[in-house]
Amino acid sequence: MATSKSRQAAVKQSLVSLADIVIEAANKKKDPTIKIPVRSLSNVDFNPRKGIIEMGKKKQERTFFNLGMAKKFMQTMLVADALAELQNANLTTSLREIYYRTKHTIEGSHENTFDNQNESDPVIEDLEVSLEALREELHVRADNGGTMVGPVIIEDDGDRVDCTKLGKGGYSIPSIVEPGYVDIKKCTADFVLLIEKGTQWNRLSEDKFWRKYNCVMLTGNGQPPRGVRRLARRLHEEKKLPVYVLVDNDPWGYYIYSVVKQGSINLAFESQRIAIPKAKFVGLSSADPAKYGLPRNVGIKLNDKDINRAKELLNYPWFQKKEWQKEIKGMLASGLKFELDALANKDFQYLTKQYLPRKLKERDWLD
Amino acid sequence: MATSKSRQAAVKQSLVSLADIVIEAANKKKDPTIKIPVRSLSNVDFNPRKGIIEMGKKKQERTFFNLGMAKKFMQTMLVADALAELQNANLTTSLREIYYRTKHTIEGSHENTFDNQNESDPVIEDLEVSLEALREELHVRADNGGTMVGPVIIEDDGDRVDCTKLGKGGYSIPSIVEPGYVDIKKCTADFVLLIEKGTQWNRLSEDKFWRKYNCVMLTGNGQPPRGVRRLARRLHEEKKLPVYVLVDNDPWGYYIYSVVKQGSINLAFESQRIAIPKAKFVGLSSADPAKYGLPRNVGIKLNDKDINRAKELLNYPWFQKKEWQKEIKGMLASGLKFELDALANKDFQYLTKQYLPRKLKERDWLD
Repeated sequence: MATSKSRQAAVKQSLVSLADIVIEAANKKKDPTIKIPVRSLSNVDFNPRKGIIEMGKKKQERTFFNLGMAKKFMQTMLVADALAELQNANLTTSLREIYYRTKHTIEGSHENTFDNQNESDPVIEDLEVSLEALREELHVRADNGGTMVGPVIIEDDGDRVDCTKLGKGGYSIPSIVEPGYVDIKKCTADFVLLIEKGTQWNRLSEDKFWRKYNCVMLTGNGQPPRGVRRLARRLHEEKKLPVYVLVDNDPWGYYIYSVVKQGSINLAFESQRIAIPKAKFVGLSSADPAKYGLPRNVGIKLNDKDINRAKELLNYPWFQKKEWQKEIKGMLASGLKFELDALANKDFQYLTKQYLPRKLKERDWLD
Repeated sequence: MATSKSRQAAVKQSLVSLADIVIEAANKKKDPTIKIPVRSLSNVDFNPRKGIIEMGKKKQERTFFNLGMAKKFMQTMLVADALAELQNANLTTSLREIYYRTKHTIEGSHENTFDNQNESDPVIEDLEVSLEALREELHVRADNGGTMVGPVIIEDDGDRVDCTKLGKGGYSIPSIVEPGYVDIKKCTADFVLLIEKGTQWNRLSEDKFWRKYNCVMLTGNGQPPRGVRRLARRLHEEKKLPVYVLVDNDPWGYYIYSVVKQGSINLAFESQRIAIPKAKFVGLSSADPAKYGLPRNVGIKLNDKDINRAKELLNYPWFQKKEWQKEIKGMLASGLKFELDALANKDFQYLTKQYLPRKLKERDWLD
């Protein structure tokens, strides 16, 4: 793919340009300085027009000839060098291995370049925001973190993988799903269903829900990792598919949905490439226990932590819509939260045969 | 598969036979009683001849007309009924959904059949050991919990999945890999490599290590879940493949290896179907840092917990071999543990290009 190749070249060039800054400064006998966007709450805001949480424009300088910054400057250059090595060899690696790769004792001293990973991880984040490159574009990966089935054909490392032909198990979603790594060759689905928990994904996969309702089903077994979110976003963007998010009826379920939709405060920089502002919340909603006849004794009493978290959510700018206030207040008023698993109280296939079909038919979701 | 079908019929029959006990007792106006093997340390032992941890023969009775046991007896029957429902409909489900499915308020009272999942989980384990059926054969699953690539073709739900053609991502290993669910149709590999951590699996998958060394590579991203262990065991047994286990050089790595090999004390009943007594430990060994020139500063100082755990391991019957005593004492003497990730200190592909090839060539493993 030409676009993915030119993007890779741009990322590589941006790493090289960091070295150029140092060389240029040395030639001019100046203090080498790089500018790094500020990664703190004060520089993060919700953009209601775009519907995402994004970073502001504040930057700070990191210079070499400054006692307080010299070590961090050196660390930044070491990590950038390791990242350039990955680009040149076309390899990916983990945060932890970058720490090990860049750790050594400085010649003629007993000082280590890094004492532990807490020092190298933030440097990688600094580089992400400075170079405006996703971690994945810098070839930094995490473990495989999710599973996919449905009518989509992808190309991964030269292999054409048809996700309708992987049994109940499915395709193990890699951490890096950028164009060039994973290409979406064909997708005939009508929508994407992003399922919080593996257990419901398994239920739906076993029942071949994706076949009857023509959808791609993804799960990240809990808070979906970046690879799962990015792949859902690419299916949304490249194949124009709506994304429905299925989570537990509790403050953590709401939060997972909101991270998929708006991005998160901690990783605000990435929202523009990972968030899915048009994602819909399809359940489990506070109104569902009554609507679907779930007995009160399969609800779980809200504890103080749940109540406090729900009250925090009520104040988030992206939950100000009337429907969302009603949704969250509904949970608080009932005093109960419900897991999707509780649908099994009706029968083991209630999710597949009753709950989701009715939800989709009635277009019963929140935006 | 005939064998898997007859096995399924046997499991189903054993569930029905529980109901028969109650009916028979009722007809004879006797107290319905079932016998349940004792699942405590006192009834678990290491069998050095078989090389596995296994359960003894002690059993206890659970009867209905006994104030202390009546509720548990009822719970056992409710769970057995739910499990029979799964067999009849040919569905699988989770521990949590069984809890929800069997929970209700007993008519004419305010008493719930189960108040929380801590009550239903042990009943399922009781049934496993009583009926001599693996949890998976009772159709109880967990989340997908691992990944596989390499020259093996499996059949999953009617789909033929060629694990050489799934890119870097690989096949997401389901929780239930029993015959009939997952069948190993063809495997031309020379060995199985079971890798503790996802990050090394990803390194090797990216480098197509499995192609050059003709192996099947599995990971469970940490302590391998039952599905991963069972699939490794089936590859070992059905395809006569040796299994090599690659873990960190720390007490937890040794322990993970030992669970793969001998089984665990908590789940002693399953060892005979899941353990791989001939599995070999291929590294990271205490002698490796010196042999492969890893600097001391990428080692991690052993803490008190590590030291105590290592001393416990030294006393386990299955670590009594001379080589194992030397291995564990070597780690204690150095005062350091090493992660596989630390190999990246040499270079990002050191694991693929130097470490593992030499290990395999020199047959440098522990039994």
